[in-house]
Amino acid sequence: MILVLRKDATSEQIKKLKEKITGLGFKIHESTGEERTILGIIGGNVNILQELGIETYPGVEKVIRVLKPYKLVSRDFHPENTVIEINGVRVGGNNFTVIAGPCSVESEEQIIEVAKAVKKAGAHMLRGGAFKPRTSPYSFRGLEKEGIRLLLTAKKETGLPIVTELMDPRDIDLFEEMDVIQIGTRNMQNYRLLTEVGKLNKPVILKRGYAATIEEWLLAAEYIASEGNNKIILCERGVRTFETATRNTMDISAIPLVKELSHLPVIADPSHGTGRWDLVEPMALASLSAGADGLIIEVHNNPFEALSDGPQSLKPKKFGKLMEKIKQLAPLLGKEI
Amino acid sequence: MILVLRKDATSEQIKKLKEKITGLGFKIHESTGEERTILGIIGGNVNILQELGIETYPGVEKVIRVLKPYKLVSRDFHPENTVIEINGVRVGGNNFTVIAGPCSVESEEQIIEVAKAVKKAGAHMLRGGAFKPRTSPYSFRGLEKEGIRLLLTAKKETGLPIVTELMDPRDIDLFEEMDVIQIGTRNMQNYRLLTEVGKLNKPVILKRGYAATIEEWLLAAEYIASEGNNKIILCERGVRTFETATRNTMDISAIPLVKELSHLPVIADPSHGTGRWDLVEPMALASLSAGADGLIIEVHNNPFEALSDGPQSLKPKKFGKLMEKIKQLAPLLGKEI
Amino acid sequence: MILVLRKDATSEQIKKLKEKITGLGFKIHESTGEERTILGIIGGNVNILQELGIETYPGVEKVIRVLKPYKLVSRDFHPENTVIEINGVRVGGNNFTVIAGPCSVESEEQIIEVAKAVKKAGAHMLRGGAFKPRTSPYSFRGLEKEGIRLLLTAKKETGLPIVTELMDPRDIDLFEEMDVIQIGTRNMQNYRLLTEVGKLNKPVILKRGYAATIEEWLLAAEYIASEGNNKIILCERGVRTFETATRNTMDISAIPLVKELSHLPVIADPSHGTGRWDLVEPMALASLSAGADGLIIEVHNNPFEALSDGPQSLKPKKFGKLMEKIKQLAPLLGKEI
Amino acid sequence: MILVLRKDATSEQIKKLKEKITGLGFKIHESTGEERTILGIIGGNVNILQELGIETYPGVEKVIRVLKPYKLVSRDFHPENTVIEINGVRVGGNNFTVIAGPCSVESEEQIIEVAKAVKKAGAHMLRGGAFKPRTSPYSFRGLEKEGIRLLLTAKKETGLPIVTELMDPRDIDLFEEMDVIQIGTRNMQNYRLLTEVGKLNKPVILKRGYAATIEEWLLAAEYIASEGNNKIILCERGVRTFETATRNTMDISAIPLVKELSHLPVIADPSHGTGRWDLVEPMALASLSAGADGLIIEVHNNPFEALSDGPQSLKPKKFGKLMEKIKQLAPLLGKEI
Repeated sequence: MILVLRKDATSEQIKKLKEKITGLGFKIHESTGEERTILGIIGGNVNILQELGIETYPGVEKVIRVLKPYKLVSRDFHPENTVIEINGVRVGGNNFTVIAGPCSVESEEQIIEVAKAVKKAGAHMLRGGAFKPRTSPYSFRGLEKEGIRLLLTAKKETGLPIVTELMDPRDIDLFEEMDVIQIGTRNMQNYRLLTEVGKLNKPVILKRGYAATIEEWLLAAEYIASEGNNKIILCERGVRTFETATRNTMDISAIPLVKELSHLPVIADPSHGTGRWDLVEPMALASLSAGADGLIIEVHNNPFEALSDGPQSLKPKKFGKLMEKIKQLAPLLGKEI
Repeated sequence: MILVLRKDATSEQIKKLKEKITGLGFKIHESTGEERTILGIIGGNVNILQELGIETYPGVEKVIRVLKPYKLVSRDFHPENTVIEINGVRVGGNNFTVIAGPCSVESEEQIIEVAKAVKKAGAHMLRGGAFKPRTSPYSFRGLEKEGIRLLLTAKKETGLPIVTELMDPRDIDLFEEMDVIQIGTRNMQNYRLLTEVGKLNKPVILKRGYAATIEEWLLAAEYIASEGNNKIILCERGVRTFETATRNTMDISAIPLVKELSHLPVIADPSHGTGRWDLVEPMALASLSAGADGLIIEVHNNPFEALSDGPQSLKPKKFGKLMEKIKQLAPLLGKEI
Repeated sequence: MILVLRKDATSEQIKKLKEKITGLGFKIHESTGEERTILGIIGGNVNILQELGIETYPGVEKVIRVLKPYKLVSRDFHPENTVIEINGVRVGGNNFTVIAGPCSVESEEQIIEVAKAVKKAGAHMLRGGAFKPRTSPYSFRGLEKEGIRLLLTAKKETGLPIVTELMDPRDIDLFEEMDVIQIGTRNMQNYRLLTEVGKLNKPVILKRGYAATIEEWLLAAEYIASEGNNKIILCERGVRTFETATRNTMDISAIPLVKELSHLPVIADPSHGTGRWDLVEPMALASLSAGADGLIIEVHNNPFEALSDGPQSLKPKKFGKLMEKIKQLAPLLGKEI
Repeated sequence: MILVLRKDATSEQIKKLKEKITGLGFKIHESTGEERTILGIIGGNVNILQELGIETYPGVEKVIRVLKPYKLVSRDFHPENTVIEINGVRVGGNNFTVIAGPCSVESEEQIIEVAKAVKKAGAHMLRGGAFKPRTSPYSFRGLEKEGIRLLLTAKKETGLPIVTELMDPRDIDLFEEMDVIQIGTRNMQNYRLLTEVGKLNKPVILKRGYAATIEEWLLAAEYIASEGNNKIILCERGVRTFETATRNTMDISAIPLVKELSHLPVIADPSHGTGRWDLVEPMALASLSAGADGLIIEVHNNPFEALSDGPQSLKPKKFGKLMEKIKQLAPLLGKEI
């Protein structure tokens, strides 16, 4: 940690400041330039200094942290790529893994039909929401327990491992037979929930908060890892910006950057990332090309359309075409699918 | 709800679209301009159409919602200002209410000392965190159950009602004697938590999510209200922007705007809103002048400073001076304190 | 244009409002729902109504524009892809065009060396700044007139067409022999400059403003087109968000979206878009995969490094490797290079 | 400037790096911690190191600037508040100055009428646009030269000094009799324009770019100051965020913060800052309470309304009421009006 002192810091202020810091067991490396004095603080847990509010001490202009605040999830700590195995499906390393399925589980017929369609097209896992976080209390919140049951049925029918979202620590027992737990964007900083899934021996997809920095995202992963669960898959799903033409702005550059900073696999969600079906394919291919380890994509039989064989019933077909393109490109990008 | 159709929408597409909409029981008001056809959809719950993904239907260019998606918290629904009474303290209407106290409860001595100091300066309620959401798993997470006990002690000593944060539905029983439950910025969209506090008969301070739109904030309040709890105090605490000179950017304009849209009281948190002690006073006064119904302010005895009678032990004095200024300005702004 | 009226709009207010609108020559299509009355305004130039401030009229709740505000650059107006020819280099359609070169022209030796290196690697045009917009007045602002001269020398040596930035209408005569004029991100809304380049018969690269919406970007292009110059190449170069780990956040989804909305070619600038050399390759490939028509990339001989044959002198090599990857991927994405 | 080296930086890399830095005349202060080596660079113009791209050198993890990049506009350089005198009107110090008038000059009748109204209400200067930057090329761009003439007429009639926007260095001669030149938000980084107004001996209002950081804003002011013109008035006018309920989000906290960092006066523009007439009054009072040195407010006779004596013709009345409130509050905030 580095303290930049104010130009007008008095020698008395500097003296007191140094006494306090050394009194806490830190060493100080002082550097006096023409315009500012700088104190490098060495040793120990600098969190203590931040919690003591050292940036508010008289004479201090700014505090700069030098080290990354996360450890277990850092590539410094674990240089090799983490590869997670889920019932024979591998995520990370040179694997490219595709998770597909409907936003919500709506009925047995729907989930089985979609599961079979995505399996046929080459998807490796099935996603589907049983518990849905909804912006409005008047929207459909999912089939809940019944949704979990239907996902298990789909798993038995197709053999696809299941990915589904957990919103509340009190529901955790219901998820025992689910293969991967998803933590949604709005819960990325629900620390009690992170702590609970950290205690499980089950893979977790941790979506980036829609306004979370990369550092906060990795710290959220650190919460899980610090409880003992290292099976963490990070998922970029778009961040909130001033642009309203897309629901979110996918931060594609976060994919290669996080892969530099961390050993964890990183997948991308172009469905939520754009909010527009017509942009899913280009953004899926962009994610692959930027180094993503996989994708999570919404594929559905829209019941609105289904009533009339509308063009939305082509959705699984479009997904199939996307899978064909992915299979062509992946080998050129060092990925197996 | 209004559907703007694509310029190249075919008459076949339009015909099918209209059949589906009327089949769901809605009426359609069609308006054909030179460049676009527009369908106004009347009657019923338009949420159904959004959940059916009508914006993805062929021929549809965009979907515009006309009505506000929240009801119970809207001023349309309840034109009068809501005033909430908390053990003799009133929030809302022409009252200006100040809540003050330390970020975290650290010890009995600390919380009692701060409580007495803020009471003396004129604060109406005491705040203090027992459960702390921390970005890093390695930071202090609060005294938890013991913190709640110390807050009760401070309440007995000073008579000040207590405001403290709830992070997990599983803790709710511990909060029985707390006067006001705070939902923090990271939990504004923790819908299961909102649902639980909605079932209580206890005032709730709902902080704005640091990247939540005003509409999402009011929908989060609607979650609470829709369960039967109308004692909701909204709290503007800064949003995340590109600017890094302050921790957040306080959206002061949200204060008068939310007061137009909703009947609920709105308070402001200049401490978290700026992250800088030197900006708390100007932003507290700005909030008052913009129409806020109160403030929540961090006042503390920094233990780092306390070791040496450092200038941070002046903090309660600075708070006292701020209270003096508030008392001078409030009457000119139509507020009683 | 659609006017949504307030729930409490009086019949007198509505009557006056309608009189004014029809008095200006518009037709009104009125639609009365259970909760709101909506007026559809048909015919004429709705800009007039906005300039008259109709959204402030009593009884009006909100104003919704239905039509896109740009015309000439819209795909509605010109459905085919625009292909621009620049001394034998084609931009747009199924071409993938790479522009490369140093940030600033620094010396004859430097620009010639880099020009030859990028040509050898397969670049189609040379970029280099003679006039540099710098955040600080104390930074190097470019060689100006001499820089233009050196760019011409490089053009003669290599045959590569030249792309360089114009900042001031007063410099325009100096750019006569430059092949493509670049309008930088900070000048995207310098309307007088846009108007001047609109009068030229010369291709223009219009970089997206770092906080410009897609609509504002297309309106800036419309400024150029409305003066008669249709040779516009749009360039996505990252937008400003809360994330500070990268200099900007590249909005890759803007590439396919703008190509839907407009017939103009869209290229990407991963160098400024990320500000990090290690992210240029993944983001270049992501841009290609998302549908970009080309790239503009900084390639340089860092003089700092050059003094010692440091690893930065590999830069042209790295660029060469990137070009190899692009050549492998492009055909699978329907692009010729 | 501080260089944090990578954990895996080799001793060879560190040696070369240090040779280069000392070779450029800087001194190095090395500090070796347990996890990272840090180099403090002392002396000289560190801009050179940034222009040489030192952050890309092998072994370097990050570069941290210690000193503020602006000088002349900094309070470190000039501790006293700057007070600017404009034909007897003072801006800065303990003065509170109000500038009011229409967005655009539309006719002699309009500008004279508004000028008289705002003078009567107590405004100190008249604003009005003759050259208007418009997002769309199809919108009214101002009366230009004729607008300047009408502003002069209004000045003669009322004695109010005139504030008007300059967009293009080629127009500068037309502004000779204008009292204050405004640089608009879209031109805050039009460096050639800043350089030109820096050469004048005339006060300049420099609006904050709608996505400019405070540091960039002060650097834009530094451009003007570095040419010799110190008569700079900074104007906060809202920044762009994810929130769409207001046109911009006013960064009220920028007002006290900039006043700490700089000696220049800071005024606020609640009209553009919010885009909503109903929010102008609360945000004007909030700006005053946060420490602003003045306001710039749009006051108009809406011609749409004027046709029928509509409620918008109350606008000057509302402005008058706001002035009354300002006059009541200002003395309590240490300001004279």
